[in-house]
Amino acid sequence: MSLFQEWVKDRILETKSVLCLGLDTILNKIPETLQSDENPQLAFNRGMIDVTHDLVCCYKPNFAFYTAYGSQGFETLKSTIEYAHSYNIPVILDAKFGDIGHTAEYYAQTAFDVLQADAVTLNPYMGKDSIAPFQHYEDRSLFILCFTSNISRIDLQTQMVSGPEREQPLYEHVARKIVEWNTNQTLGAVVGATAPEELAQIRQVLGEDMPVLCPGIGVQGGDLEEVLWAGRAERGSLIVNVSRAILYASAEEDFAEAARREAEMFVNQTENFFAQAVEEK
Amino acid sequence: MSLFQEWVKDRILETKSVLCLGLDTILNKIPETLQSDENPQLAFNRGMIDVTHDLVCCYKPNFAFYTAYGSQGFETLKSTIEYAHSYNIPVILDAKFGDIGHTAEYYAQTAFDVLQADAVTLNPYMGKDSIAPFQHYEDRSLFILCFTSNISRIDLQTQMVSGPEREQPLYEHVARKIVEWNTNQTLGAVVGATAPEELAQIRQVLGEDMPVLCPGIGVQGGDLEEVLWAGRAERGSLIVNVSRAILYASAEEDFAEAARREAEMFVNQTENFFAQAVEEK
Repeated sequence: MSLFQEWVKDRILETKSVLCLGLDTILNKIPETLQSDENPQLAFNRGMIDVTHDLVCCYKPNFAFYTAYGSQGFETLKSTIEYAHSYNIPVILDAKFGDIGHTAEYYAQTAFDVLQADAVTLNPYMGKDSIAPFQHYEDRSLFILCFTSNISRIDLQTQMVSGPEREQPLYEHVARKIVEWNTNQTLGAVVGATAPEELAQIRQVLGEDMPVLCPGIGVQGGDLEEVLWAGRAERGSLIVNVSRAILYASAEEDFAEAARREAEMFVNQTENFFAQAVEEK
Repeated sequence: MSLFQEWVKDRILETKSVLCLGLDTILNKIPETLQSDENPQLAFNRGMIDVTHDLVCCYKPNFAFYTAYGSQGFETLKSTIEYAHSYNIPVILDAKFGDIGHTAEYYAQTAFDVLQADAVTLNPYMGKDSIAPFQHYEDRSLFILCFTSNISRIDLQTQMVSGPEREQPLYEHVARKIVEWNTNQTLGAVVGATAPEELAQIRQVLGEDMPVLCPGIGVQGGDLEEVLWAGRAERGSLIVNVSRAILYASAEEDFAEAARREAEMFVNQTENFFAQAVEEK
């Protein structure tokens, strides 16, 4: 198990929260009160981390929301990760990198050396070559896209391909590849929260201890309780991401309190789940 | 046809060169003489553009080789694109972005508004949602990964899925999706130069005028002449990328002349091809 995996699992089992707060911070969604700050995006992220650090198992900034603001955005991303680390919280860089091995080395440097992320999301379309250079960082984790949360996932991911015993959807083929590629216990999978049935099926292929990152709760409409059961959250290996529903809970001066209230509501639900899961044992 | 597509096609048919120089510039590969420059990466790129601008149809910097050098690398990428534009040469940003629609909007901003790229490469795994926000930039072009040049492409891309008449490999399914998604003539495909037979087959699906970007010539081992015939280069819709074989033709002081010689050898071959293709008509 990589350092990241132990770190997150310990946090989950200790805090009974599987919440990963997605720091997808858009400048024009930042409340008026912060707009006069020298760097509103960083001020907002720090504010969010200040009010949620005891409620999350990790943070997940998405690369796009920082590169869109140029080199300053890049610096903000770096500072945001640093700030999360100052509270001793691990950070997943959501970048969905996927390129030939020679290039992947430089993306790995970007994520792990330059930005100091603890984990990164990757795209499986180009196969093992595109994953391997990231695996050399044995203390980090890699979450490979398997079955995503968006509607048009059906364009490729549900196409039927041959499997070991029967035909299987491409996402299940990818899940099997993730298991096959996981030679040094650094891999995990991304499975959208908008498909709990498929999540349960994928969990069977991955085994109950492989980390699974579930985006799609909140604005995208996934049901939290279903996801917790389907993903075997009681094992400490399921991470559920929420972004906009918490970040923008209020656009007024009370944005931080409103975000904390949303995060607390989420954690109350996961605490209930963990209590129930213990009872069922 | 997007502005980018006309621009490149005109250049190809005028110069008889399908060469896209991949500006994948690594700091420790830059010749000694430039290492004392304030920004060796930018100095190297400018040098390369100075000696090749009349021999290429476009440039293609890969995002990884700039993000790996942090926010300065990001600025270098921006300045490199600007410099290519000063010679009136279009630029493809090779970033292989692929994310849900909401996020893809911000990657499109990154590529087109911040970096001012003329085209970008995208990953199809998440489907149409992840492509659509880029299509709003109607004067730019999008190259969707179809069949890549690397060995482990077989992990997903050659898996057999059902097709309109018979089973087909996933890359052919993707080629059909690209045609289906191409509602405003902004799409093209990435097909590796290491598979000329598959390129010919994919070209049939895409039609002879859809732009195809072919990486994999040079260090990766693709055969140029085969690729030109298979990809129907005489139509002006095939772009062949070479990176390392030109960039690092020499590690000594003559690096620029050596790079130009390599590029000239390449263009001689494509000129021969165009002459032959005209004769065969």
